[in-house]
Amino acid sequence: MTTGSPARTPVDARLSMNQRTVPSLSIPALIEACARHGYRHIGLWREPVAVTGPAEVARLVATAGLRITSLCRGGWFLATDAPTRREREDDNRRAVDEAAEIGADCLVLVCGPALGKDLVSARRQVADAIALLADYAREMGVRLALEPMHPLYCGDRSVVVTLAQATAIARGAGPGVGVLLDSYHLWWDPDLEAALAGATDLVAGLQLADWLAPPPHHLNGRGMLGEGTIDLRRFCRLVEELTEYEGPIEVEIFNEDIWAADPELVLQRVAASFSSEVG
Amino acid sequence: MTTGSPARTPVDARLSMNQRTVPSLSIPALIEACARHGYRHIGLWREPVAVTGPAEVARLVATAGLRITSLCRGGWFLATDAPTRREREDDNRRAVDEAAEIGADCLVLVCGPALGKDLVSARRQVADAIALLADYAREMGVRLALEPMHPLYCGDRSVVVTLAQATAIARGAGPGVGVLLDSYHLWWDPDLEAALAGATDLVAGLQLADWLAPPPHHLNGRGMLGEGTIDLRRFCRLVEELTEYEGPIEVEIFNEDIWAADPELVLQRVAASFSSEVG
Repeated sequence: MTTGSPARTPVDARLSMNQRTVPSLSIPALIEACARHGYRHIGLWREPVAVTGPAEVARLVATAGLRITSLCRGGWFLATDAPTRREREDDNRRAVDEAAEIGADCLVLVCGPALGKDLVSARRQVADAIALLADYAREMGVRLALEPMHPLYCGDRSVVVTLAQATAIARGAGPGVGVLLDSYHLWWDPDLEAALAGATDLVAGLQLADWLAPPPHHLNGRGMLGEGTIDLRRFCRLVEELTEYEGPIEVEIFNEDIWAADPELVLQRVAASFSSEVG
Repeated sequence: MTTGSPARTPVDARLSMNQRTVPSLSIPALIEACARHGYRHIGLWREPVAVTGPAEVARLVATAGLRITSLCRGGWFLATDAPTRREREDDNRRAVDEAAEIGADCLVLVCGPALGKDLVSARRQVADAIALLADYAREMGVRLALEPMHPLYCGDRSVVVTLAQATAIARGAGPGVGVLLDSYHLWWDPDLEAALAGATDLVAGLQLADWLAPPPHHLNGRGMLGEGTIDLRRFCRLVEELTEYEGPIEVEIFNEDIWAADPELVLQRVAASFSSEVG
Protein backbone atom coordinates (compact mmCIF):
# COMPACT_ATOMS: atom_id res chain seq x y z
CA MET A 1 0.00 0.00 0.00
CA THR A 2 1.37 3.43 -0.87
CA THR A 3 0.30 6.85 0.36
CA GLY A 4 -3.21 8.25 0.14
CA SER A 5 -6.46 6.76 1.37
CA PRO A 6 -6.50 2.98 1.75
CA ALA A 7 -7.65 1.02 -1.27
CA ARG A 8 -11.19 -0.19 -0.97
CA THR A 9 -11.70 -3.94 -1.17
CA PRO A 10 -13.84 -4.63 -4.24
CA VAL A 11 -17.22 -6.04 -3.23
CA ASP A 12 -17.46 -9.74 -4.04
CA ALA A 13 -20.16 -10.43 -6.62
CA ARG A 14 -21.84 -12.92 -4.24
CA LEU A 15 -22.02 -10.52 -1.31
CA SER A 16 -25.41 -9.30 -0.08
CA MET A 17 -25.85 -6.62 2.58
CA ASN A 18 -28.60 -7.42 5.03
CA GLN A 19 -30.05 -4.15 6.18
CA ARG A 20 -29.96 -5.17 9.84
CA THR A 21 -26.17 -4.85 9.63
CA VAL A 22 -26.62 -1.11 8.96
CA PRO A 23 -30.04 -0.42 10.51
CA SER A 24 -29.55 3.35 10.70
CA LEU A 25 -29.98 3.57 6.92
CA SER A 26 -33.45 3.97 5.44
CA ILE A 27 -34.10 1.72 2.48
CA PRO A 28 -33.52 4.51 -0.08
CA ALA A 29 -30.23 5.40 1.67
CA LEU A 30 -29.26 1.72 1.88
CA ILE A 31 -29.91 1.15 -1.81
CA GLU A 32 -27.94 4.26 -2.79
CA ALA A 33 -25.00 3.34 -0.57
CA CYS A 34 -24.92 -0.35 -1.55
CA ALA A 35 -25.05 0.45 -5.26
CA ARG A 36 -22.29 3.05 -4.88
CA HIS A 37 -20.07 0.58 -2.97
CA GLY A 38 -20.61 -2.10 -5.59
CA TYR A 39 -22.94 -4.44 -3.73
CA ARG A 40 -25.25 -6.32 -6.10
CA HIS A 41 -27.64 -7.73 -3.50
CA ILE A 42 -29.43 -6.64 -0.36
CA GLY A 43 -31.53 -8.38 2.30
CA LEU A 44 -34.51 -6.47 3.68
CA TRP A 45 -36.82 -6.47 6.72
CA ARG A 46 -40.55 -5.96 6.73
CA GLU A 47 -40.72 -2.97 9.08
CA PRO A 48 -38.50 -0.68 6.97
CA VAL A 49 -40.13 -2.02 3.79
CA ALA A 50 -43.46 -0.87 5.23
CA VAL A 51 -42.00 2.59 5.91
CA THR A 52 -40.83 3.06 2.31
CA GLY A 53 -43.70 1.07 0.83
CA PRO A 54 -43.22 -2.20 -1.11
CA ALA A 55 -43.95 -0.64 -4.52
CA GLU A 56 -41.38 2.10 -3.98
CA VAL A 57 -38.85 -0.46 -2.70
CA ALA A 58 -39.37 -2.52 -5.86
CA ARG A 59 -38.91 0.57 -8.03
CA LEU A 60 -35.74 1.74 -6.23
CA VAL A 61 -34.17 -1.71 -6.32
CA ALA A 62 -34.92 -2.15 -10.02
CA THR A 63 -33.51 1.28 -10.82
CA ALA A 64 -30.33 0.53 -8.90
CA GLY A 65 -29.97 -2.91 -10.52
CA LEU A 66 -29.93 -4.69 -7.17
CA ARG A 67 -31.42 -8.06 -6.22
CA ILE A 68 -33.26 -8.69 -2.93
CA THR A 69 -31.95 -11.91 -1.47
CA SER A 70 -34.42 -12.21 1.40
CA LEU A 71 -37.25 -10.58 3.26
CA CYS A 72 -37.25 -11.04 7.04
CA ARG A 73 -39.54 -12.22 8.45
CA GLY A 74 -42.66 -14.24 8.86
CA GLY A 75 -43.30 -16.96 11.39
CA TRP A 76 -44.09 -16.53 15.10
CA PHE A 77 -46.90 -18.97 14.40
CA LEU A 78 -47.99 -20.14 17.82
CA ALA A 79 -50.89 -18.54 19.61
CA THR A 80 -52.92 -19.44 22.68
CA ASP A 81 -56.30 -18.72 21.09
CA ALA A 82 -57.93 -19.04 17.68
CA PRO A 83 -58.36 -15.31 16.95
CA THR A 84 -54.67 -14.66 17.63
CA ARG A 85 -53.71 -17.64 15.52
CA ARG A 86 -55.81 -16.31 12.64
CA GLU A 87 -54.14 -12.90 13.05
CA ARG A 88 -50.76 -14.59 12.74
CA GLU A 89 -51.90 -16.47 9.66
CA ASP A 90 -53.15 -13.23 8.11
CA ASP A 91 -49.92 -11.46 8.92
CA ASN A 92 -47.87 -14.26 7.39
CA ARG A 93 -49.93 -14.07 4.20
CA ARG A 94 -49.26 -10.32 4.13
CA ALA A 95 -45.56 -11.09 4.48
CA VAL A 96 -45.83 -13.40 1.46
CA ASP A 97 -47.58 -10.60 -0.46
CA GLU A 98 -44.82 -8.17 0.44
CA ALA A 99 -42.10 -10.62 -0.59
CA ALA A 100 -43.89 -11.08 -3.91
CA GLU A 101 -44.30 -7.35 -4.45
CA ILE A 102 -40.64 -6.49 -3.82
CA GLY A 103 -39.43 -9.61 -5.66
CA ALA A 104 -37.42 -11.08 -2.78
CA ASP A 105 -35.73 -14.44 -3.37
CA CYS A 106 -37.35 -15.83 -0.23
CA LEU A 107 -39.38 -15.01 2.87
CA VAL A 108 -37.53 -15.99 6.05
CA LEU A 109 -39.59 -17.71 8.75
CA VAL A 110 -38.93 -17.75 12.49
CA CYS A 111 -40.23 -21.09 13.74
CA GLY A 112 -41.47 -20.45 17.25
CA PRO A 113 -41.25 -19.94 20.09
CA ALA A 114 -43.29 -22.45 22.09
CA LEU A 115 -45.97 -20.92 24.26
CA GLY A 116 -45.50 -23.41 27.07
CA LYS A 117 -43.02 -26.15 27.89
CA ASP A 118 -44.16 -28.70 25.33
CA LEU A 119 -41.53 -28.60 22.59
CA VAL A 120 -42.89 -31.69 20.85
CA SER A 121 -46.31 -30.13 20.39
CA ALA A 122 -44.86 -26.73 19.48
CA ARG A 123 -42.71 -28.31 16.78
CA ARG A 124 -45.76 -30.09 15.35
CA GLN A 125 -47.77 -26.85 15.36
CA VAL A 126 -44.96 -25.03 13.56
CA ALA A 127 -44.87 -27.72 10.88
CA ASP A 128 -48.65 -27.51 10.44
CA ALA A 129 -48.60 -23.71 10.20
CA ILE A 130 -45.83 -23.80 7.60
CA ALA A 131 -47.66 -26.40 5.51
CA LEU A 132 -50.71 -24.14 5.57
CA LEU A 133 -48.74 -21.02 4.62
CA ALA A 134 -46.92 -22.94 1.90
CA ASP A 135 -50.13 -23.33 -0.11
CA TYR A 136 -50.54 -19.57 -0.24
CA ALA A 137 -46.84 -18.95 -0.91
CA ARG A 138 -46.88 -21.34 -3.88
CA GLU A 139 -49.93 -19.54 -5.25
CA MET A 140 -48.04 -16.25 -4.96
CA GLY A 141 -44.77 -17.64 -6.30
CA VAL A 142 -42.84 -16.87 -3.10
CA ARG A 143 -40.26 -19.26 -1.69
CA LEU A 144 -40.43 -19.78 2.08
CA ALA A 145 -37.14 -20.18 3.94
CA LEU A 146 -37.25 -21.87 7.34
CA GLU A 147 -34.42 -20.59 9.50
CA PRO A 148 -33.12 -23.06 12.06
CA MET A 149 -31.86 -20.95 14.96
CA HIS A 150 -29.10 -21.56 17.47
CA PRO A 151 -30.39 -23.55 20.47
CA LEU A 152 -29.66 -20.41 22.48
CA TYR A 153 -32.99 -19.18 21.13
CA CYS A 154 -35.02 -22.32 21.83
CA GLY A 155 -36.77 -20.65 24.76
CA ASP A 156 -37.71 -17.34 23.18
CA ARG A 157 -37.48 -17.49 19.39
CA SER A 158 -37.44 -20.81 17.60
CA VAL A 159 -38.21 -24.41 18.45
CA VAL A 160 -36.46 -25.37 15.21
CA VAL A 161 -32.82 -25.47 16.25
CA THR A 162 -31.08 -27.77 13.79
CA LEU A 163 -30.81 -27.85 10.04
CA ALA A 164 -32.00 -31.47 10.01
CA GLN A 165 -35.21 -30.39 11.75
CA ALA A 166 -35.80 -27.50 9.36
CA THR A 167 -35.13 -29.75 6.38
CA ALA A 168 -37.67 -32.33 7.54
CA ILE A 169 -40.33 -29.66 8.02
CA ALA A 170 -39.54 -28.05 4.67
CA ARG A 171 -39.83 -31.39 2.87
CA GLY A 172 -43.12 -32.05 4.61
CA ALA A 173 -44.49 -28.70 3.43
CA GLY A 174 -43.84 -29.49 -0.21
CA PRO A 175 -42.43 -27.60 -3.20
CA GLY A 176 -41.40 -23.99 -2.73
CA VAL A 177 -40.37 -24.39 0.88
CA GLY A 178 -36.67 -24.30 1.65
CA VAL A 179 -34.25 -23.56 4.45
CA LEU A 180 -32.05 -20.61 5.29
CA LEU A 181 -28.50 -21.34 6.42
CA ASP A 182 -26.88 -18.93 8.86
CA SER A 183 -23.38 -19.61 10.15
CA TYR A 184 -24.24 -18.05 13.51
CA HIS A 185 -27.07 -20.52 14.06
CA LEU A 186 -25.48 -23.67 12.64
CA TRP A 187 -21.73 -23.64 13.25
CA TRP A 188 -21.78 -25.69 16.48
CA ASP A 189 -23.66 -28.67 15.00
CA PRO A 190 -21.57 -31.86 15.01
CA ASP A 191 -23.89 -33.24 12.32
CA LEU A 192 -23.62 -30.19 10.06
CA GLU A 193 -22.15 -32.04 7.09
CA ALA A 194 -24.84 -34.72 7.09
CA ALA A 195 -27.51 -32.06 7.54
CA LEU A 196 -26.21 -30.06 4.59
CA ALA A 197 -26.09 -33.17 2.45
CA GLY A 198 -29.71 -33.80 3.42
CA ALA A 199 -30.76 -30.27 2.48
CA THR A 200 -28.96 -30.22 -0.83
CA ASP A 201 -31.86 -29.02 -3.03
CA LEU A 202 -33.58 -26.96 -0.34
CA VAL A 203 -31.19 -24.12 0.39
CA ALA A 204 -33.02 -20.86 -0.21
CA GLY A 205 -30.43 -18.54 1.23
CA LEU A 206 -27.13 -18.24 3.06
CA GLN A 207 -26.25 -15.75 5.77
CA LEU A 208 -23.05 -15.11 7.67
CA ALA A 209 -22.18 -13.67 11.05
CA ASP A 210 -19.42 -14.69 13.43
CA TRP A 211 -19.84 -16.09 16.95
CA LEU A 212 -18.28 -14.04 19.73
CA ALA A 213 -17.47 -16.23 22.74
CA PRO A 214 -19.31 -15.44 24.87
CA PRO A 215 -21.83 -13.36 22.94
CA PRO A 216 -21.89 -9.84 24.44
CA HIS A 217 -25.69 -9.68 24.07
CA HIS A 218 -28.46 -12.27 23.78
CA LEU A 219 -29.85 -10.92 20.49
CA ASN A 220 -27.38 -8.29 19.35
CA GLY A 221 -24.07 -9.92 20.12
CA ARG A 222 -23.04 -11.30 16.74
CA GLY A 223 -19.57 -10.72 15.38
CA MET A 224 -18.07 -9.19 12.25
CA LEU A 225 -16.67 -11.90 9.97
CA GLY A 226 -13.30 -13.02 11.31
CA GLU A 227 -13.75 -11.65 14.81
CA GLY A 228 -15.22 -14.80 16.33
CA THR A 229 -14.86 -18.55 16.58
CA ILE A 230 -16.47 -19.74 13.34
CA ASP A 231 -14.43 -21.13 10.46
CA LEU A 232 -16.49 -19.21 7.91
CA ARG A 233 -14.44 -20.33 4.94
CA ARG A 234 -15.11 -23.97 5.81
CA PHE A 235 -18.79 -23.23 6.42
CA CYS A 236 -19.18 -21.70 2.95
CA ARG A 237 -17.12 -24.44 1.36
CA LEU A 238 -19.33 -27.13 2.90
CA VAL A 239 -22.44 -25.36 1.62
CA GLU A 240 -20.86 -25.17 -1.84
CA GLU A 241 -19.74 -28.80 -1.85
CA LEU A 242 -22.74 -30.43 -0.20
CA THR A 243 -25.66 -28.43 -1.55
CA GLU A 244 -26.76 -27.06 -4.88
CA TYR A 245 -26.84 -23.48 -3.56
CA GLU A 246 -24.83 -21.08 -5.70
CA GLY A 247 -26.64 -17.87 -4.84
CA PRO A 248 -25.64 -14.72 -2.99
CA ILE A 249 -24.27 -14.69 0.54
CA GLU A 250 -25.79 -12.24 2.97
CA VAL A 251 -23.95 -10.69 5.86
CA GLU A 252 -26.37 -10.10 8.72
CA ILE A 253 -24.77 -8.90 11.94
CA PHE A 254 -26.82 -7.84 14.94
CA ASN A 255 -24.28 -5.94 17.00
CA GLU A 256 -24.72 -2.69 18.84
CA ASP A 257 -21.12 -1.55 18.31
CA ILE A 258 -21.40 -2.10 14.57
CA TRP A 259 -24.76 -0.33 14.55
CA ALA A 260 -23.13 2.68 16.22
CA ALA A 261 -20.42 2.89 13.56
CA ASP A 262 -20.57 4.96 10.36
CA PRO A 263 -22.54 2.84 7.83
CA GLU A 264 -20.06 3.81 5.12
CA LEU A 265 -17.30 2.16 7.11
CA VAL A 266 -19.47 -0.87 7.87
CA LEU A 267 -20.14 -1.41 4.16
CA GLN A 268 -16.37 -1.33 3.58
CA ARG A 269 -15.56 -3.56 6.57
CA VAL A 270 -18.06 -6.19 5.48
CA ALA A 271 -16.60 -6.27 1.97
CA ALA A 272 -13.05 -6.48 3.33
CA SER A 273 -13.82 -9.12 5.95
CA PHE A 274 -15.77 -11.22 3.45
CA SER A 275 -12.80 -11.05 1.12
CA SER A 276 -10.30 -12.11 3.78
CA GLU A 277 -12.46 -14.71 5.57
CA VAL A 278 -14.44 -16.29 2.73
CA GLY A 279 -13.58 -14.91 -0.71
CA MET B 1 -51.87 -23.96 55.42
CA THR B 2 -52.77 -22.73 58.89
CA THR B 3 -50.86 -20.36 61.13
CA GLY B 4 -47.24 -20.77 62.17
CA SER B 5 -44.18 -21.25 60.02
CA PRO B 6 -44.78 -22.95 56.66
CA ALA B 7 -44.33 -26.70 56.59
CA ARG B 8 -41.04 -27.78 55.07
CA THR B 9 -41.23 -29.98 52.00
CA PRO B 10 -39.56 -33.29 52.85
CA VAL B 11 -36.41 -33.79 50.79
CA ASP B 12 -36.90 -36.42 48.10
CA ALA B 13 -34.63 -39.43 48.63
CA ARG B 14 -33.20 -38.99 45.12
CA LEU B 15 -32.29 -35.35 45.54
CA SER B 16 -28.64 -34.30 45.58
CA MET B 17 -27.47 -30.77 46.37
CA ASN B 18 -24.66 -29.63 44.12
CA GLN B 19 -22.55 -27.25 46.11
CA ARG B 20 -22.45 -24.66 43.33
CA THR B 21 -26.13 -24.00 44.07
CA VAL B 22 -25.08 -22.72 47.52
CA PRO B 23 -21.46 -21.69 46.94
CA SER B 24 -21.25 -19.52 50.04
CA LEU B 25 -21.17 -22.65 52.22
CA SER B 26 -17.85 -24.30 52.99
CA ILE B 27 -17.92 -28.06 52.61
CA PRO B 28 -18.24 -28.66 56.38
CA ALA B 29 -21.12 -26.15 56.50
CA LEU B 30 -22.71 -27.69 53.40
CA ILE B 31 -22.55 -31.19 54.84
CA GLU B 32 -24.01 -30.08 58.17
CA ALA B 33 -26.84 -28.15 56.48
CA CYS B 34 -27.68 -30.84 53.93
CA ALA B 35 -27.77 -33.59 56.56
CA ARG B 36 -29.98 -31.44 58.80
CA HIS B 37 -32.40 -30.71 55.93
CA GLY B 38 -32.62 -34.38 55.04
CA TYR B 39 -30.56 -34.44 51.84
CA ARG B 40 -28.87 -37.79 51.31
CA HIS B 41 -26.51 -36.76 48.51
CA ILE B 42 -24.25 -33.89 47.57
CA GLY B 43 -22.24 -32.92 44.47
CA LEU B 44 -18.85 -31.32 45.05
CA TRP B 45 -16.28 -29.19 43.20
CA ARG B 46 -12.53 -29.58 43.25
CA GLU B 47 -11.59 -26.12 44.50
CA PRO B 48 -13.58 -26.31 47.76
CA VAL B 49 -12.53 -29.96 48.16
CA ALA B 50 -8.92 -28.75 48.05
CA VAL B 51 -9.68 -26.15 50.73
CA THR B 52 -11.11 -28.71 53.15
CA GLY B 53 -8.80 -31.51 52.00
CA PRO B 54 -10.03 -34.72 50.35
CA ALA B 55 -9.39 -36.90 53.40
CA GLU B 56 -11.36 -34.59 55.66
CA VAL B 57 -14.16 -34.39 53.07
CA ALA B 58 -14.35 -38.18 52.98
CA ARG B 59 -14.46 -38.32 56.77
CA LEU B 60 -17.17 -35.65 57.10
CA VAL B 61 -19.34 -37.22 54.42
CA ALA B 62 -19.05 -40.68 55.95
CA THR B 63 -19.90 -39.35 59.40
CA ALA B 64 -22.95 -37.54 58.04
CA GLY B 65 -24.06 -40.60 56.07
CA LEU B 66 -24.10 -38.70 52.77
CA ARG B 67 -23.15 -39.90 49.31
CA ILE B 68 -21.12 -37.78 46.85
CA THR B 69 -22.84 -37.99 43.49
CA SER B 70 -20.19 -36.16 41.45
CA LEU B 71 -16.93 -34.28 41.55
CA CYS B 72 -16.63 -31.34 39.16
CA ARG B 73 -14.46 -31.16 37.19
CA GLY B 74 -11.72 -32.41 34.96
CA GLY B 75 -11.35 -31.78 31.27
CA TRP B 76 -10.12 -28.60 29.56
CA PHE B 77 -7.87 -30.93 27.62
CA LEU B 78 -6.68 -28.85 24.69
CA ALA B 79 -3.37 -27.04 24.79
CA THR B 80 -1.25 -25.30 22.19
CA ASP B 81 2.03 -26.88 23.30
CA ALA B 82 3.21 -30.19 24.68
CA PRO B 83 4.24 -28.97 28.18
CA THR B 84 0.82 -27.40 28.74
CA ARG B 85 -0.89 -30.54 27.45
CA ARG B 86 1.13 -32.65 29.89
CA GLU B 87 0.16 -30.26 32.70
CA ARG B 88 -3.48 -30.78 31.78
CA GLU B 89 -3.01 -34.54 31.75
CA ASP B 90 -1.35 -34.40 35.18
CA ASP B 91 -4.12 -32.24 36.54
CA ASN B 92 -6.78 -34.59 35.21
CA ARG B 93 -5.06 -37.54 36.86
CA ARG B 94 -5.05 -35.56 40.12
CA ALA B 95 -8.78 -34.99 39.65
CA VAL B 96 -9.22 -38.76 39.30
CA ASP B 97 -7.19 -39.25 42.50
CA GLU B 98 -9.39 -36.75 44.33
CA ALA B 99 -12.59 -38.40 43.09
CA ALA B 100 -11.25 -41.74 44.30
CA GLU B 101 -10.23 -40.36 47.69
CA ILE B 102 -13.59 -38.73 48.42
CA GLY B 103 -15.52 -41.66 46.91
CA ALA B 104 -17.47 -39.62 44.32
CA ASP B 105 -19.78 -41.55 42.01
CA CYS B 106 -18.12 -39.91 39.00
CA LEU B 107 -15.68 -37.25 37.83
CA VAL B 108 -17.35 -34.75 35.49
CA LEU B 109 -15.37 -33.72 32.40
CA VAL B 110 -15.65 -30.49 30.44
CA CYS B 111 -14.85 -31.38 26.83
CA GLY B 112 -13.20 -28.32 25.38
CA PRO B 113 -13.02 -25.63 24.32
CA ALA B 114 -11.27 -25.61 20.94
CA LEU B 115 -8.16 -23.48 20.81
CA GLY B 116 -8.79 -22.31 17.26
CA LYS B 117 -11.61 -22.56 14.78
CA ASP B 118 -11.21 -26.22 13.88
CA LEU B 119 -14.04 -28.01 15.67
CA VAL B 120 -13.43 -31.30 13.87
CA SER B 121 -9.87 -31.50 15.09
CA ALA B 122 -10.77 -30.26 18.58
CA ARG B 123 -13.41 -32.96 18.90
CA ARG B 124 -10.90 -35.61 17.87
CA GLN B 125 -8.34 -34.31 20.38
CA VAL B 126 -10.94 -34.39 23.15
CA ALA B 127 -11.78 -38.00 22.33
CA ASP B 128 -8.09 -38.94 22.36
CA ALA B 129 -7.49 -37.20 25.69
CA ILE B 130 -10.47 -38.93 27.28
CA ALA B 131 -9.36 -42.33 26.02
CA LEU B 132 -5.95 -41.67 27.60
CA LEU B 133 -7.41 -40.53 30.91
CA ALA B 134 -9.82 -43.48 30.93
CA ASP B 135 -6.93 -45.93 31.36
CA TYR B 136 -5.88 -44.19 34.55
CA ALA B 137 -9.46 -43.78 35.79
CA ARG B 138 -10.13 -47.51 35.36
CA GLU B 139 -6.98 -48.27 37.31
CA MET B 140 -8.20 -46.01 40.11
CA GLY B 141 -11.80 -47.27 39.97
CA VAL B 142 -13.22 -43.84 39.10
CA ARG B 143 -16.03 -43.41 36.60
CA LEU B 144 -15.58 -40.55 34.14
CA ALA B 145 -18.70 -38.60 33.12
CA LEU B 146 -18.55 -36.62 29.89
CA GLU B 147 -20.87 -33.65 30.11
CA PRO B 148 -22.33 -32.52 26.79
CA MET B 149 -22.89 -28.79 27.14
CA HIS B 150 -25.45 -26.50 25.56
CA PRO B 151 -24.24 -25.22 22.15
CA LEU B 152 -24.21 -21.79 23.80
CA TYR B 153 -20.85 -22.89 25.22
CA CYS B 154 -19.35 -24.27 22.01
CA GLY B 155 -17.06 -21.26 21.69
CA ASP B 156 -15.70 -21.08 25.20
CA ARG B 157 -16.33 -24.30 27.13
CA SER B 158 -17.14 -27.50 25.29
CA VAL B 159 -16.94 -28.75 21.74
CA VAL B 160 -19.15 -31.66 22.83
CA VAL B 161 -22.63 -30.17 22.56
CA THR B 162 -24.99 -33.10 22.10
CA LEU B 163 -25.65 -36.26 24.06
CA ALA B 164 -25.14 -38.35 20.93
CA GLN B 165 -21.63 -36.92 20.58
CA ALA B 166 -20.77 -37.55 24.23
CA THR B 167 -22.12 -41.08 23.99
CA ALA B 168 -19.99 -41.87 20.95
CA ILE B 169 -16.85 -40.57 22.67
CA ALA B 170 -17.67 -42.45 25.89
CA ARG B 171 -18.16 -45.72 24.02
CA GLY B 172 -14.89 -45.18 22.19
CA ALA B 173 -13.06 -44.70 25.50
CA GLY B 174 -14.19 -48.06 26.86
CA PRO B 175 -15.53 -49.33 30.18
CA GLY B 176 -15.84 -46.92 33.08
CA VAL B 177 -16.58 -43.90 30.91
CA GLY B 178 -20.11 -42.54 30.95
CA VAL B 179 -22.06 -39.38 30.32
CA LEU B 180 -23.61 -36.76 32.56
CA LEU B 181 -27.11 -35.56 31.69
CA ASP B 182 -28.01 -31.98 32.57
CA SER B 183 -31.43 -30.61 31.66
CA TYR B 184 -29.97 -27.14 31.09
CA HIS B 185 -27.59 -28.46 28.46
CA LEU B 186 -29.85 -30.98 26.72
CA TRP B 187 -33.46 -29.78 26.80
CA TRP B 188 -33.45 -28.13 23.35
CA ASP B 189 -32.29 -31.23 21.44
CA PRO B 190 -34.92 -32.47 18.96
CA ASP B 191 -33.15 -35.85 19.00
CA LEU B 192 -33.09 -36.17 22.79
CA GLU B 193 -35.16 -39.33 22.97
CA ALA B 194 -33.02 -41.19 20.46
CA ALA B 195 -29.87 -39.92 22.18
CA LEU B 196 -31.08 -41.14 25.57
CA ALA B 197 -31.97 -44.52 24.12
CA GLY B 198 -28.44 -44.65 22.69
CA ALA B 199 -26.88 -43.84 26.07
CA THR B 200 -28.96 -46.28 28.06
CA ASP B 201 -26.14 -48.04 29.95
CA LEU B 202 -23.81 -45.04 30.08
CA VAL B 203 -25.57 -42.53 32.31
CA ALA B 204 -23.25 -41.69 35.20
CA GLY B 205 -25.24 -38.83 36.63
CA LEU B 206 -28.23 -36.55 36.23
CA GLN B 207 -28.38 -32.83 36.96
CA LEU B 208 -31.21 -30.34 36.80
CA ALA B 209 -31.47 -26.60 36.31
CA ASP B 210 -34.12 -24.65 34.44
CA TRP B 211 -33.60 -22.47 31.34
CA LEU B 212 -34.46 -18.81 31.74
CA ALA B 213 -35.37 -17.24 28.38
CA PRO B 214 -33.21 -15.38 27.73
CA PRO B 215 -30.56 -16.40 30.25
CA PRO B 216 -29.71 -13.35 32.40
CA HIS B 217 -25.99 -14.25 32.38
CA HIS B 218 -23.78 -16.34 30.07
CA LEU B 219 -22.51 -18.65 32.82
CA ASN B 220 -24.57 -17.81 35.89
CA GLY B 221 -28.05 -17.41 34.44
CA ARG B 222 -29.64 -20.78 35.17
CA GLY B 223 -33.06 -20.99 36.73
CA MET B 224 -34.57 -22.55 39.82
CA LEU B 225 -36.66 -25.63 38.91
CA GLY B 226 -40.00 -24.47 37.56
CA GLU B 227 -38.97 -20.90 36.82
CA GLY B 228 -37.95 -21.49 33.21
CA THR B 229 -38.95 -23.16 29.98
CA ILE B 230 -37.90 -26.78 30.55
CA ASP B 231 -40.44 -29.53 31.12
CA LEU B 232 -38.32 -31.06 33.88
CA ARG B 233 -40.84 -33.78 34.72
CA ARG B 234 -40.75 -35.02 31.13
CA PHE B 235 -36.95 -34.79 31.07
CA CYS B 236 -36.63 -36.98 34.17
CA ARG B 237 -39.30 -39.37 32.92
CA LEU B 238 -37.46 -39.83 29.61
CA VAL B 239 -34.23 -40.57 31.49
CA GLU B 240 -36.09 -43.08 33.64
CA GLU B 241 -37.83 -44.76 30.71
CA LEU B 242 -35.03 -44.75 28.16
CA THR B 243 -31.93 -45.36 30.27
CA GLU B 244 -30.94 -47.65 33.09
CA TYR B 245 -30.11 -44.75 35.39
CA GLU B 246 -31.87 -44.95 38.75
CA GLY B 247 -29.43 -42.90 40.81
CA PRO B 248 -29.67 -39.56 42.57
CA ILE B 249 -30.66 -36.34 40.83
CA GLU B 250 -28.48 -33.32 41.45
CA VAL B 251 -29.72 -29.77 41.38
CA GLU B 252 -26.96 -27.50 40.13
CA ILE B 253 -27.99 -23.89 39.57
CA PHE B 254 -25.49 -21.20 38.66
CA ASN B 255 -27.44 -18.03 39.40
CA GLU B 256 -26.23 -14.90 41.12
CA ASP B 257 -29.60 -14.12 42.70
CA ILE B 258 -29.81 -17.60 44.20
CA TRP B 259 -26.21 -17.30 45.37
CA ALA B 260 -27.09 -14.07 47.18
CA ALA B 261 -29.98 -15.70 49.04
CA ASP B 262 -29.78 -17.35 52.46
CA PRO B 263 -28.49 -20.92 51.83
CA GLU B 264 -31.00 -22.25 54.36
CA LEU B 265 -33.81 -20.92 52.16
CA VAL B 266 -32.15 -22.23 48.99
CA LEU B 267 -31.97 -25.74 50.47
CA GLN B 268 -35.69 -25.50 51.20
CA ARG B 269 -36.58 -24.00 47.82
CA VAL B 270 -34.71 -26.71 45.95
CA ALA B 271 -36.51 -29.43 47.89
CA ALA B 272 -39.89 -27.77 47.34
CA SER B 273 -39.35 -27.05 43.64
CA PHE B 274 -38.06 -30.58 43.03
CA SER B 275 -41.17 -31.92 44.72
CA SER B 276 -43.54 -29.78 42.63
CA GLU B 277 -41.70 -30.00 39.29
CA VAL B 278 -40.34 -33.54 39.30
CA GLY B 279 -41.28 -35.58 42.37
